[in-house]
Amino acid sequence: MNWLPEWVRRYQPGWLAGDLTAGLIVTVMLIPQSLAYALLAGLPPEVGLYASILPIVAYALLGSSMTLAVGPVAVVSLMTASALQPLAAAGSAQYLALAMQLSLLSGVMLLAFGALRLGFLAHFLSHPVISGFISGSAVLIAVGQLKYILGLKVAGSGVLETVTGLLEALPQTRPATLAIGVASLAFLLLARRYLAPALQRLGLPPKAADVMGKLAPMAAVIVSTAVVGLFRLDQSAGVSVVGAVPQGLPRLALSVPGPDALAQLWLPALLITLVGFVESVSVAQSLALKRRQRIRPNRELVGLGAANVASALSGGYPVTGGFARSVVNFAAGANTPLAGVVSAALMALVIAALTGLFYYLPHAVLAATIIVAVTSLIDIGTFRQAWHYDRADALSLLATAAGVIALGVEAGILTGVTLSLGLLVWRSSHPHIAVVGRVPGTEHFRNVERHAVQTVSGLLALRVDESLFFANATVLEDRIEALLAKDATVRRVLLICSAVNQIDVTALGVLTQLERSMAARNIELSLAEVKGPVMDRLRPTELGQRMQGRVFLSTHEAFEHASHSPAHAG
Amino acid sequence: MNWLPEWVRRYQPGWLAGDLTAGLIVTVMLIPQSLAYALLAGLPPEVGLYASILPIVAYALLGSSMTLAVGPVAVVSLMTASALQPLAAAGSAQYLALAMQLSLLSGVMLLAFGALRLGFLAHFLSHPVISGFISGSAVLIAVGQLKYILGLKVAGSGVLETVTGLLEALPQTRPATLAIGVASLAFLLLARRYLAPALQRLGLPPKAADVMGKLAPMAAVIVSTAVVGLFRLDQSAGVSVVGAVPQGLPRLALSVPGPDALAQLWLPALLITLVGFVESVSVAQSLALKRRQRIRPNRELVGLGAANVASALSGGYPVTGGFARSVVNFAAGANTPLAGVVSAALMALVIAALTGLFYYLPHAVLAATIIVAVTSLIDIGTFRQAWHYDRADALSLLATAAGVIALGVEAGILTGVTLSLGLLVWRSSHPHIAVVGRVPGTEHFRNVERHAVQTVSGLLALRVDESLFFANATVLEDRIEALLAKDATVRRVLLICSAVNQIDVTALGVLTQLERSMAARNIELSLAEVKGPVMDRLRPTELGQRMQGRVFLSTHEAFEHASHSPAHAG
Repeated sequence: MNWLPEWVRRYQPGWLAGDLTAGLIVTVMLIPQSLAYALLAGLPPEVGLYASILPIVAYALLGSSMTLAVGPVAVVSLMTASALQPLAAAGSAQYLALAMQLSLLSGVMLLAFGALRLGFLAHFLSHPVISGFISGSAVLIAVGQLKYILGLKVAGSGVLETVTGLLEALPQTRPATLAIGVASLAFLLLARRYLAPALQRLGLPPKAADVMGKLAPMAAVIVSTAVVGLFRLDQSAGVSVVGAVPQGLPRLALSVPGPDALAQLWLPALLITLVGFVESVSVAQSLALKRRQRIRPNRELVGLGAANVASALSGGYPVTGGFARSVVNFAAGANTPLAGVVSAALMALVIAALTGLFYYLPHAVLAATIIVAVTSLIDIGTFRQAWHYDRADALSLLATAAGVIALGVEAGILTGVTLSLGLLVWRSSHPHIAVVGRVPGTEHFRNVERHAVQTVSGLLALRVDESLFFANATVLEDRIEALLAKDATVRRVLLICSAVNQIDVTALGVLTQLERSMAARNIELSLAEVKGPVMDRLRPTELGQRMQGRVFLSTHEAFEHASHSPAHAG
Repeated sequence: MNWLPEWVRRYQPGWLAGDLTAGLIVTVMLIPQSLAYALLAGLPPEVGLYASILPIVAYALLGSSMTLAVGPVAVVSLMTASALQPLAAAGSAQYLALAMQLSLLSGVMLLAFGALRLGFLAHFLSHPVISGFISGSAVLIAVGQLKYILGLKVAGSGVLETVTGLLEALPQTRPATLAIGVASLAFLLLARRYLAPALQRLGLPPKAADVMGKLAPMAAVIVSTAVVGLFRLDQSAGVSVVGAVPQGLPRLALSVPGPDALAQLWLPALLITLVGFVESVSVAQSLALKRRQRIRPNRELVGLGAANVASALSGGYPVTGGFARSVVNFAAGANTPLAGVVSAALMALVIAALTGLFYYLPHAVLAATIIVAVTSLIDIGTFRQAWHYDRADALSLLATAAGVIALGVEAGILTGVTLSLGLLVWRSSHPHIAVVGRVPGTEHFRNVERHAVQTVSGLLALRVDESLFFANATVLEDRIEALLAKDATVRRVLLICSAVNQIDVTALGVLTQLERSMAARNIELSLAEVKGPVMDRLRPTELGQRMQGRVFLSTHEAFEHASHSPAHAG
């Protein structure tokens, strides 16, 4: 039984009630969301339902979070649409096949990253870049849904294109659709704000009221479906409805991409993998911390990879851990992934027997659900905070959001990744280097610019506050040469390596050349506070050999040596 | 006269002799090299000569090195060939136009990088990656030249393709060509090894002997041209010769790339820009250091940019600072870029009047010149050194070289850049974090794993040896959570920030969340040794507000506080 996940082997009866409740509540949220996000992805509604069964079970067996709710999410659905729309007509058989292949590719990438233990790569999107990406995507998604609220047919995926298209088509707005759309929007927005407090005043405990408040979309679905069905508004008033959704569980089949599809899909798949993983891990982590549980990023890669392969196998499309459903799952008392399994079973039941109920569900209500869900993702607070704290970060947030809105999700996320790495490169190439002197009467050494310290004539003592490697070694060299050019009396340069954890080959080369060129000018290089592992590597090198007798244990010792033995004059 | 470069305004008569000698000697080296590298780039010989006049003058006016010799170089010529061969037939008018456009694009990029002060980007190719790239390119170049030594016509640019092509065509080897090629190779290899010592024994001073030794290629050119011309070996024995080279100075004209060419050329141009700049700056820097002069990377960008624009204007192709010629220029006594201007004037004279002399110059001799020049670029020493010092660096060197040889220069350099950045990402995401305690009887705090130190019960003191930012913030959080999970008695966590020069928005968010989640578990977070600028930014933030009274000036103070005031029990 060792292959069973730990939570199954250690399952305690006391956990069951919480898992069952959470599973049921998440299902009620998941039904409208999975239909809506399939619409957003340009896929038939059943694909959203399919993506909410096997993937959840796969994640439950292999993932590491106890409360993450996996399935279709808004941003990944948008990325799917943006990847597939140039390749096939939305809703066509080819489009469906490509969606499954995209999910398969993303799953295989996640599994490969997990096998290679590359979970740390998730840290390479900074929060501002992620926040900008999500906010930009939310704007893109919300604007794209307006056509369903107005009952218009508008082509085009860019924000500008969509808005001008909407304005041109505005006279054709369908009043009944608009009424339903606006009413749902108003209801959902008001519910988000006032439903939970109202339920609380009616006597529900705060937590239960919060959870129940999240079920408003289901209420909108039920009421609007009943109204449209009762008055046959689809025929009498041209309200666009979901229509016949094929009944029955998805058939298992694997569609493997050919070389052409591979060439077209690998980049979108990689971006979906990256964004999906980062989003999912950050949700899982923030929930786990509240209960002092641990998320293992490499296990998460495997869990999400399996979920996406399962989605590809069962007629679905790319999935990941969703923010809103996971929070509700957590708050509703989920103790283990059994809650997810319960959800999956209920979804299977819905697909097997109840899809007829969705016939009269208006697209406008699904669009309203999406709009309300994504507007809560637009995050002005993080921008305001970043603006006050660090302009570079704030600007990279803004650039990423603008990139998404103006150029689309793929160009946007690439802009973001480039900015993240560019910032990393920029910051790494600017090591903090301080010229230090002795604090009088102590063995402490501080920055000469900020403290009244004593220096030894002819000795230039520098403290480098970073490891030395290719990105900053030349900067150190430049700094030393500039200081030497300014002060011709310097006969000794002391490098204090207390914060140097590593010297790579490039930096070793730079230091070796520097020592040699300084020696030719009768200037002595010495080192202090070199850490053990760094010294072990340095010793057998040419530089290590030449430096013998000039490596001091402490800065104090080096200062003592310098003040008692004047360096040979030049 | 302020627009004149400093070296012109301060020119001293004493410098003239050195500049004239160096200019003359470099010209003698430059003539065979510019013809050979044009051949390597797939261009007619005169293009190599054109690229050796105006670009040198442009660099002399705007660059910052006193001794760098700019012009056609081997690696950039190879990159030019590899960029243009898929786009046009070698030697065709379109090929020539594309070569000029490539030079223009690279020049504009260099100027733009200079204007944006992006010189620091040059540090982002690690030495191992550059070394691997150069060695791989040298192998590729040498193999590609074998066909000229054998007198064979072989298509294909990959190493494998070329070698199999050569083996198939081997029976058609032309004996006279082979004889000339092998003789030149042998002569050049022997000259490299024995000519300078021999000249020294004949009484020349060592430096002069060294410089004269570099003129062997010119000797090979003169002798072989005379022999082929005398016996008309081009007609009697089918020896392939340079033939008629158009006489006269290049006409000035600018060929601007259209949108199609732009789409095809921007990436190769960017790679040529990067490689050319990095190579050139490292040569210029190593020479400048020997005379305690300074190279300013942003000025270098402008100088090289102007040189490439000048090359594009005057019928040339991408140029950069060359290693071998710069070293000879330096050793021959060049004091200022006037040496370059002298070279350029002499080259202009050659083109205007003497191109007829090259008619009988055999291609095999040019190929031998290239092979001997590039084999000296193959750098086993750096690999061996890296292997002993740092395996990751050694493997990235090997991967880059293998990438160049197997996939070509562009894929090779992209592999290298990716590996450089990947290594940076990897190293940045692993900050050194030490749990510390007090060295008994002192105010020093050291790693508990390596020193016998005293700790305070319930206090976990951590020293982070790096700035905190998006790439490593989560790693710190994970580490703290793991330590807390291991030891449930911890009630206080002290973060010693002596090496933290910056906390970015992402890290601030992680710390804020960590503090909140720890507070919920009755664990107190405190900080020590926070640097002034970091504290100034931190103070107004939510975290800064919450941390009031828990930020200590020194670790000592924090330890004193912790041992005298037990934290509130959980």
